[in-house]
Amino acid sequence: MFKEKLENLRKKGALIHNITNYVTVNDVANILLAAGGAPIMADDAGEAAEITAICGGLVINIGTLNERTIKSMFLAGKKAAELGHVTVLDPVGAGASALRTGTALRLLSEIPFTVIRGNISEIKAVSAGSGSTQGVDANVADRVSEENLDAAIAFIKSVAEKTGAVVAATGAIDLVGDSKKVFVIRNGHPTMSRITGTGCMLSALVAAYVTANPAAPLEATAAAVVAMGLAGETARARMKTEDGNGAFRQYLLDAVFTMTGEALEAGAKYEIR
Amino acid sequence: MFKEKLENLRKKGALIHNITNYVTVNDVANILLAAGGAPIMADDAGEAAEITAICGGLVINIGTLNERTIKSMFLAGKKAAELGHVTVLDPVGAGASALRTGTALRLLSEIPFTVIRGNISEIKAVSAGSGSTQGVDANVADRVSEENLDAAIAFIKSVAEKTGAVVAATGAIDLVGDSKKVFVIRNGHPTMSRITGTGCMLSALVAAYVTANPAAPLEATAAAVVAMGLAGETARARMKTEDGNGAFRQYLLDAVFTMTGEALEAGAKYEIR
Amino acid sequence: MFKEKLENLRKKGALIHNITNYVTVNDVANILLAAGGAPIMADDAGEAAEITAICGGLVINIGTLNERTIKSMFLAGKKAAELGHVTVLDPVGAGASALRTGTALRLLSEIPFTVIRGNISEIKAVSAGSGSTQGVDANVADRVSEENLDAAIAFIKSVAEKTGAVVAATGAIDLVGDSKKVFVIRNGHPTMSRITGTGCMLSALVAAYVTANPAAPLEATAAAVVAMGLAGETARARMKTEDGNGAFRQYLLDAVFTMTGEALEAGAKYEIR
Repeated sequence: MFKEKLENLRKKGALIHNITNYVTVNDVANILLAAGGAPIMADDAGEAAEITAICGGLVINIGTLNERTIKSMFLAGKKAAELGHVTVLDPVGAGASALRTGTALRLLSEIPFTVIRGNISEIKAVSAGSGSTQGVDANVADRVSEENLDAAIAFIKSVAEKTGAVVAATGAIDLVGDSKKVFVIRNGHPTMSRITGTGCMLSALVAAYVTANPAAPLEATAAAVVAMGLAGETARARMKTEDGNGAFRQYLLDAVFTMTGEALEAGAKYEIR
Repeated sequence: MFKEKLENLRKKGALIHNITNYVTVNDVANILLAAGGAPIMADDAGEAAEITAICGGLVINIGTLNERTIKSMFLAGKKAAELGHVTVLDPVGAGASALRTGTALRLLSEIPFTVIRGNISEIKAVSAGSGSTQGVDANVADRVSEENLDAAIAFIKSVAEKTGAVVAATGAIDLVGDSKKVFVIRNGHPTMSRITGTGCMLSALVAAYVTANPAAPLEATAAAVVAMGLAGETARARMKTEDGNGAFRQYLLDAVFTMTGEALEAGAKYEIR
Repeated sequence: MFKEKLENLRKKGALIHNITNYVTVNDVANILLAAGGAPIMADDAGEAAEITAICGGLVINIGTLNERTIKSMFLAGKKAAELGHVTVLDPVGAGASALRTGTALRLLSEIPFTVIRGNISEIKAVSAGSGSTQGVDANVADRVSEENLDAAIAFIKSVAEKTGAVVAATGAIDLVGDSKKVFVIRNGHPTMSRITGTGCMLSALVAAYVTANPAAPLEATAAAVVAMGLAGETARARMKTEDGNGAFRQYLLDAVFTMTGEALEAGAKYEIR
């Protein structure tokens, strides 16, 4: 199931418009190229809608949002929706400031997103219109664990129901679901949290997978999440004694670049709930 | 011929002011340092002209242009021209939006650029005042090949004639020319298109080479283009089974860093037309 | 002494708000994660103060300052000071333009910084309200050497006295001091100047070290400076023939990631004056 998702992306490509933060943008561009997609970044109101129109998918990432780029997010998001393009929202740091939470909520109310991808705190923040986020990482209390898994799954389904989007809450355990079905994914490695940008990269990867597999947004999102986690495992296994997060960052891109459909299928650790 | 161009840069250095996009800016800074130059980035209208004045060269790259930075591009470009500095235009994505095409055309009409460096689609867009660009890569129809080489060479000469600039259209085959002479360069490797920023990096490298070799802008531009292509070949040859575009990106910088004048001269694959 | 500083950071963590330049921001985020801290980047006036409030430290880096972000620097800086947070100023390129020098001076007059970290030219520029800076590197005439060491030490003490901040002037010889005591640090390697961002990364590292060691800002700053220099030595020692600044950049992050308190203590090369 996941194998063909990866292979469709490599075969068909996917041009993804990213309105994203300047912290991780280079890694976002390179992971798209690693997976078989291609990036365009454009965040001026004077061209945001026009650039989106020539792409297949759009990622709105509010990581370093500002007054100017927020305007472009709405222009691009509405145009993408109008054209039936894949749209992914990454509400980075929602809950950490009123500007972030408010912008994410307004985006959700005006644009019908295909996928929302964040950590569980961010998903809670955009769901509740409230919630607490510490920085851009899930609060300890908000961490999905084996103990609170049933509740978390129910929560994902409810957010998906409410928003009409596929919801991906990623962390130690990743949950990817719509209103009826949730993939519980146990790929990945803790070292992924020792580099910046794994979340941003994943959101872009999701956009590319869904754009290349438009008939199956839930499965394509799950495939991208599994691919990222598996890449983290591969990267980790490659680390030598003297390697740190500098090496890990490179190995992660390399792992996405070299991943085959077979390896993705074989390496996937998930259950459906 | 190319050897001395590289060595002049290492000996004399070249401080390059870059008004550039935030996607690839870190790689742009590091490739300048790898080659023996040095970078400054400054894009506020309040200092753009002043910063340019203390540099030897200026690169204007419209990759993530916006209303604020466009203003700075004009201020810096005019000051650099007034001071007789080397100026390089990289019209990233010209043809992809009216804002990009229009800005590139206005820049060309108000600033006498030393070099214009883009892919063939972008060069066509800024030449024609029209043209089609898909994202930031050359259209298949717009790709320079052995079949359409004569026409492409004539086109480069005509754009150089019209603009007064050295024109570098890079892709599978690179063309670097003025109104009378075109270097047809066959260095490089397809993997270069699997990382973001090879074009942006090359534009900065061109600025550094020309700044350190002011009497020979055409040859210096060709030397930079050959150096980049050769670095791509070296980087590719270094890739191991598990390496992807993460490793390639690092190896590319490393190859520019370690390249000798002799290696550049010996590795150059070109003809003059 | 340095050992416990490093270990406190790993134990306690430190969430650092960075208003910084887009050139080196990714490396800044990753070095914080390498050392045991965590980054948040937010530069819109609409959230700068609110984001700072949830952090432990703030770095203001003027590397690509603009009208919009300058406003946010003041909002965040004042809020951080009000809350007693650690504040670090990195006056990148002060002396190179009136905007940079003036902004740095205004920041210093309105915000009581815990630490000021720059090269000696930048420190001179913000001290004198004048001075000459070439790009973002220390002028040759402004370089700290064994010959002018006494004068440089006296200068650092006077700037610390005047500003009330710990002052770190880094270069071939690093000086870290308050009004009474200066650490003269001889760690590091010239290759560190062949990548962009070692200064920016160090400023963030300083913020993290001081945030995790609030009772000893001078010693914590010195520890961070030694750690960075030692990481540069480790990274350099790891370079193979074909490695350049691409590899060096990765090795530097890796060295910070893998560094132990014992290694830091044993590798420190300094005297107190």
